Amino acid sequence: VAEELLNYRNRIGSAIELRDQALVSELSAKMHYADLASLYEDLEDDERHFLASALGAGNFSPILADIPNTLVEGALGHFTEAEQLAILDSLPDDDRVDILQDLSDERRHEFLDLLDEKTQNDTRTLLRYGEDTAGGRMTTQIGKIGADMTVKQAIDHLRADLESTGTLARIFVVDEIGRLIGKIRLRDLAFNDWDTPIRDVLTTEENSILASADQEEAAKMLSRYDMVLLPVVDESNRLLGVITSDDAIEIIEEESTEDIEKGAGISGEQSEESYLNTSIKAHFRRRCGWLVILAFLAILSGFVMMRFEETLTNVYLLSLFLPMVVAAGGNTGGQASTMVIRAMALGQLKPRDTRRVAWKEFRLGLLLGGLLSVVIGVFAIFAPPALQFTLPPGVNFTQFGLTVAIALGVQVATSTLIGALLPIGARAIKMDPAIIAAPAITTVVDVTGMVIYFTVARSILGL
Amino acid sequence: VAEELLNYRNRIGSAIELRDQALVSELSAKMHYADLASLYEDLEDDERHFLASALGAGNFSPILADIPNTLVEGALGHFTEAEQLAILDSLPDDDRVDILQDLSDERRHEFLDLLDEKTQNDTRTLLRYGEDTAGGRMTTQIGKIGADMTVKQAIDHLRADLESTGTLARIFVVDEIGRLIGKIRLRDLAFNDWDTPIRDVLTTEENSILASADQEEAAKMLSRYDMVLLPVVDESNRLLGVITSDDAIEIIEEESTEDIEKGAGISGEQSEESYLNTSIKAHFRRRCGWLVILAFLAILSGFVMMRFEETLTNVYLLSLFLPMVVAAGGNTGGQASTMVIRAMALGQLKPRDTRRVAWKEFRLGLLLGGLLSVVIGVFAIFAPPALQFTLPPGVNFTQFGLTVAIALGVQVATSTLIGALLPIGARAIKMDPAIIAAPAITTVVDVTGMVIYFTVARSILGL
Repeated sequence: VAEELLNYRNRIGSAIELRDQALVSELSAKMHYADLASLYEDLEDDERHFLASALGAGNFSPILADIPNTLVEGALGHFTEAEQLAILDSLPDDDRVDILQDLSDERRHEFLDLLDEKTQNDTRTLLRYGEDTAGGRMTTQIGKIGADMTVKQAIDHLRADLESTGTLARIFVVDEIGRLIGKIRLRDLAFNDWDTPIRDVLTTEENSILASADQEEAAKMLSRYDMVLLPVVDESNRLLGVITSDDAIEIIEEESTEDIEKGAGISGEQSEESYLNTSIKAHFRRRCGWLVILAFLAILSGFVMMRFEETLTNVYLLSLFLPMVVAAGGNTGGQASTMVIRAMALGQLKPRDTRRVAWKEFRLGLLLGGLLSVVIGVFAIFAPPALQFTLPPGVNFTQFGLTVAIALGVQVATSTLIGALLPIGARAIKMDPAIIAAPAITTVVDVTGMVIYFTVARSILGL
Repeated sequence: VAEELLNYRNRIGSAIELRDQALVSELSAKMHYADLASLYEDLEDDERHFLASALGAGNFSPILADIPNTLVEGALGHFTEAEQLAILDSLPDDDRVDILQDLSDERRHEFLDLLDEKTQNDTRTLLRYGEDTAGGRMTTQIGKIGADMTVKQAIDHLRADLESTGTLARIFVVDEIGRLIGKIRLRDLAFNDWDTPIRDVLTTEENSILASADQEEAAKMLSRYDMVLLPVVDESNRLLGVITSDDAIEIIEEESTEDIEKGAGISGEQSEESYLNTSIKAHFRRRCGWLVILAFLAILSGFVMMRFEETLTNVYLLSLFLPMVVAAGGNTGGQASTMVIRAMALGQLKPRDTRRVAWKEFRLGLLLGGLLSVVIGVFAIFAPPALQFTLPPGVNFTQFGLTVAIALGVQVATSTLIGALLPIGARAIKMDPAIIAAPAITTVVDVTGMVIYFTVARSILGL
């Protein structure tokens, strides 16, 4: 399938270069709009214009909903005012809202005024919800029936609105004033007697989400309860719309990417454009912030090195294991923070679990520190003399190995604990725990590692 | 909702402690099986047994499908042979297969022999596919009709099998020998004339996946094409089953967690148990591997420090910025590798894009290196004298600041490029790019950073 797709992409790419409109139409008819959207993103400006014209407004509208938000305004520009309006009119309401949100305020109001009254009202309502809320993500074009209907009445009611109904995977049952009371499956209508009252075949809907709730919470519910559609309600439990499972997939992918990037010290919103299509400027802006902060923080390690000049210059062999002791803390601290942050993201850790996390990571820190101590300690006792490194008089290799082993053990144990507790602390003060990036933990434990190493060296080597 | 859930959990928790069977039954009836499964996981052994007995085999079976695989064998043990068989019989086929895969070979064969012939054959077929393949994940209980049927015949055909049909979100149309030719929605049956031939209402199905393909590929297709169900076929395009969107959500979450953990140098398979329920031993095993390897690698940095003893002891002030220059490379290299690995995971980078990635990251490296150079260089010229640090005769603070600035710029630029290219290189030799963990990149660029710093210092300060 991947090969076939690549083949189509290459062929349509050449057809666009040759400006062969007939061939472009023919090939694009066999491609999925998601693939066409990704092709559109990769083209040059004039090629984009040619592709859009070749497809026509009707075929282009699903593509418009799938391209990165930064390209939307330009993409609409391929068409006349009338065509633009037709595109907006033809889209599902959630896609229409997404596109309007990507336009300038002025353009958005122009378009809104041109839509017919019902569409206009629905759209204005949806635009009121934040982009990252359940309300901002939901689709309102759903199957909705009354509890007092019969199966026959329900089918007739749904049939009348079929064109504009996006999903019938679940049909929701509401009371007289639109409050959600339950759901049924289309099969319960299709395979039932026409006289059966809906009330007798509905299942109570236990799960719903407020329109103002975070989209991530909605995705988590869909995932946890294996739901196909999650109903979105207002404060009075009136049914407003649904979040679909493909919304949930998109939200989960976005959030994972965001968490992964935050973990590496990359700040700000992920671009909707692909890695290669994102501008250097945008990449730069997201990466530079933490780098500057961490660079200044890292100078603290330098101050510690300055402070212990005498220790290091006296037993310069200490420098052989200095970077390793310091780095081992960064590695274990990073592992611990990653585990804890991911467990929190998956909803596995509640604030009351802090003590259990600390106890777990404390024991892990001791075990990992112990393991490294023994392995590297033995190495530090026997390798340097074998490599003809020397120590100043009054210091022997056993003492030296012991220094490395103890410092390494303490550094790993404390770093593991620091790595686990920093994200928990961040959450306690209402910060996103993912903000505690691994590089930040590394920078912190670099400082502690230097202090530990030189302090242990001083006391064991009698400096 | 979250509060209400916590409330139920606390109440059923107390009821279990008090061994109040009536209350446990009453409360559990109002809870979702996913929440009961997570409660079960958190209980002690004897409490688990009490909960399972209180629920009875019938209510326990959906829970069994949702608990971590390590607990499955023990959970079945709460019930008699006959009850165990009833549980397995009542589960959807994909859940039954998952559970059988978690048992010992002997137990699995015992159970298989006891199932009725049809279930047994279906189950044996599914067991042949690897756990991580599309075939291993699919459900076979789908709506399947012939292209030669009429709408009426199709409805009758589906009605006969309704009990054992898991999903009707899409109904698949096959030819005489079972090859997939298209799909229809239930609404196209429910709202159509009974005499309409299926052939006239079906949509050709463009996307399907081989049973032997990786489950991740299936999840990506569902996500990319916003599909509700993805058909799974054999080599001859015969329809075997479907992957559902809730399978896709689960796969995507698993894969993200795995990538995040790999990125932090945590190896091996993620445990199905939650962070707190995973044993110390399992945590330890997953973290210790990289730590030992990286510890030995990090000693290379120590060798570089040993090699430049004279440089460092001559101008000991170099130690003030040494950790920072080294760490800045780790940070930018980690950012670059994270971006590239994620872009590859999202399918945005093809092997032929290597040159474009390198060019992008090269420019980014220069920009980030340039920024840090200027900021830290200025700091290095003016801060040390202000803090009364001294330099040996023949060296001035401008030279010193220049050393720091140039070394930092070169280190950041090269580290960015190394971070971006290592994962691409890993993929080129057929390794999982996510294996290039950020700590590994940090360890590599620590060594290059030391070399760069001291070499620049030597030539600028004339040592």
